[in-house]
Amino acid sequence: MLVCTTPDVSIDLQKKLAEETQQTVVQNKVAELDEKDRYQAEILITYGNFEDAITVQEIDRLPNLRWIHVLSSGTEQLPKDTIRDRALCVTSSKGIHSIPMSEYVICAILYFAKRIGDFRKLQDQMRWSYSLGMSEIYGKTLCVLGTGFIGTEIAKKAKALGMEVIGFNRSGRASDGFDQTYKIRHVNEFIPSFDYICNALPSTKETRGLIDKEMIRSMKDGVIFINVGRGDLAVEADLEEGLRTGKIGGAALDVFNKEPLEPGHPFWSMENVIITPHASARTERYMERALDIFIKNYHLYKENAFENMVNKVSF
Amino acid sequence: MLVCTTPDVSIDLQKKLAEETQQTVVQNKVAELDEKDRYQAEILITYGNFEDAITVQEIDRLPNLRWIHVLSSGTEQLPKDTIRDRALCVTSSKGIHSIPMSEYVICAILYFAKRIGDFRKLQDQMRWSYSLGMSEIYGKTLCVLGTGFIGTEIAKKAKALGMEVIGFNRSGRASDGFDQTYKIRHVNEFIPSFDYICNALPSTKETRGLIDKEMIRSMKDGVIFINVGRGDLAVEADLEEGLRTGKIGGAALDVFNKEPLEPGHPFWSMENVIITPHASARTERYMERALDIFIKNYHLYKENAFENMVNKVSF
Repeated sequence: MLVCTTPDVSIDLQKKLAEETQQTVVQNKVAELDEKDRYQAEILITYGNFEDAITVQEIDRLPNLRWIHVLSSGTEQLPKDTIRDRALCVTSSKGIHSIPMSEYVICAILYFAKRIGDFRKLQDQMRWSYSLGMSEIYGKTLCVLGTGFIGTEIAKKAKALGMEVIGFNRSGRASDGFDQTYKIRHVNEFIPSFDYICNALPSTKETRGLIDKEMIRSMKDGVIFINVGRGDLAVEADLEEGLRTGKIGGAALDVFNKEPLEPGHPFWSMENVIITPHASARTERYMERALDIFIKNYHLYKENAFENMVNKVSF
Repeated sequence: MLVCTTPDVSIDLQKKLAEETQQTVVQNKVAELDEKDRYQAEILITYGNFEDAITVQEIDRLPNLRWIHVLSSGTEQLPKDTIRDRALCVTSSKGIHSIPMSEYVICAILYFAKRIGDFRKLQDQMRWSYSLGMSEIYGKTLCVLGTGFIGTEIAKKAKALGMEVIGFNRSGRASDGFDQTYKIRHVNEFIPSFDYICNALPSTKETRGLIDKEMIRSMKDGVIFINVGRGDLAVEADLEEGLRTGKIGGAALDVFNKEPLEPGHPFWSMENVIITPHASARTERYMERALDIFIKNYHLYKENAFENMVNKVSF
């Protein structure tokens, strides 16, 4: 048996994997595994999306594969039918994104409140001006779409900084860290009262296109929008118009409808937009945390205690 | 009797002042008050520094002045001798700076951790790159020089975001929100362990020039420095060299040796420096909070309960 990791892992973490699993760990893309390794590969560690996606053909090349541990949170880009047909076990790294992503969201909120972009422009002109004023986030209202691991951590941090935080989820169930939570289908009734709106929802057929022209029209003038969920939650043309007219005062966008965002897309050259390349979760501690979940699950896997493995995904 | 405010105050706040004091409130620079107002002015509300400084000549023009309420925290730019000779009562607005300034400090920490400046540069080139990674502040160590109102609020917020926070003050007394506090004269022993160093100390003969070549040499490579205290705490030439060589990875500077920072100063064109014009405390809620302290004190003043007035400054 053999563990294959498709992305590169640091030497320290590779050592840790080998020690904890007592198995051979091979770092390679599936397409580049040699014949022997292909047959021995029982466990695949991969992002399973974007630049590190896994195709049906790749899974077909691993006849003895039993378990895929995905290093990301979402699994929507995995080849569902093949996984179901082969009855593969799939686990995700859900939960490890909450610390870095909530830091990114707080960073974006403060960046716009303190008008760092505007001060940076004055700095480029060597201009000292007392007329540009900063704003406070203390006492302001933040809307968080999504009350899962990430949304909850955003809420806790924003609360600690003195914000009022309103969350939205499917059922309207209460969630730690939020002042109030409501059903997402009632979101439009509340939209006018938010100073900051942050999307932390996954892409589903119910959430796609949620942030559209109509919702934007009822937002507070100058609202700040932050998207760390999925790009297709927002109708990008509508978002673009909102940003162009100033209805939306600023946006920090870490996710997009189509990634990488194509050169020439209007977002790139908007001064009130911060573009980051789906980077908010990727910090120096990402891989360590994602592999900690894998290792925990590995011990359960070896004991055939599949039912106790964390972050199991059903297909 | 008359209350004179040297800076402009919003109509709402002017109304509030008149209602609470039941006195005439005049908004004007002292030099521009007419004869009658000069003689009636008993209370002066002023920043008392920088652009809104008060001179000996101005105080001489107000023969019946009894009380100066300063809208800022420090009072080092007031004409000490005249105030002492005339036995004027002086109160400050100390304490109201902690919310906005701590927000600025957290903003700066996150700005550098999330590499917003570097991502902004990629954005200008319409470049989507997975190779630039963000850092986390979770688990990192922040040094706060000064454990007063502002330092304490910075510490509380940084702790809530998962940082370890070490404070320094004169006596080494423990202070809320800090993991540890030490005597400032021992600061150099601890300097190598800090990821972020924030100055929130006032300018005194003991603190001036504290941050010099020697201290910078023992800092962690790539440390982030934030100054919201006073500019002269740092030897600017040394700071500049540290930033130029990359020993200091980045700095957010809100205060300077000489303000306004002169055009052509090397800081202006450094890409790893954020310059803000002594702006971190000035938000939409500043004046309201500063005048709330004044109003509270006014009622005590009217009852001759001088000893109970808050933020009294001795000269």
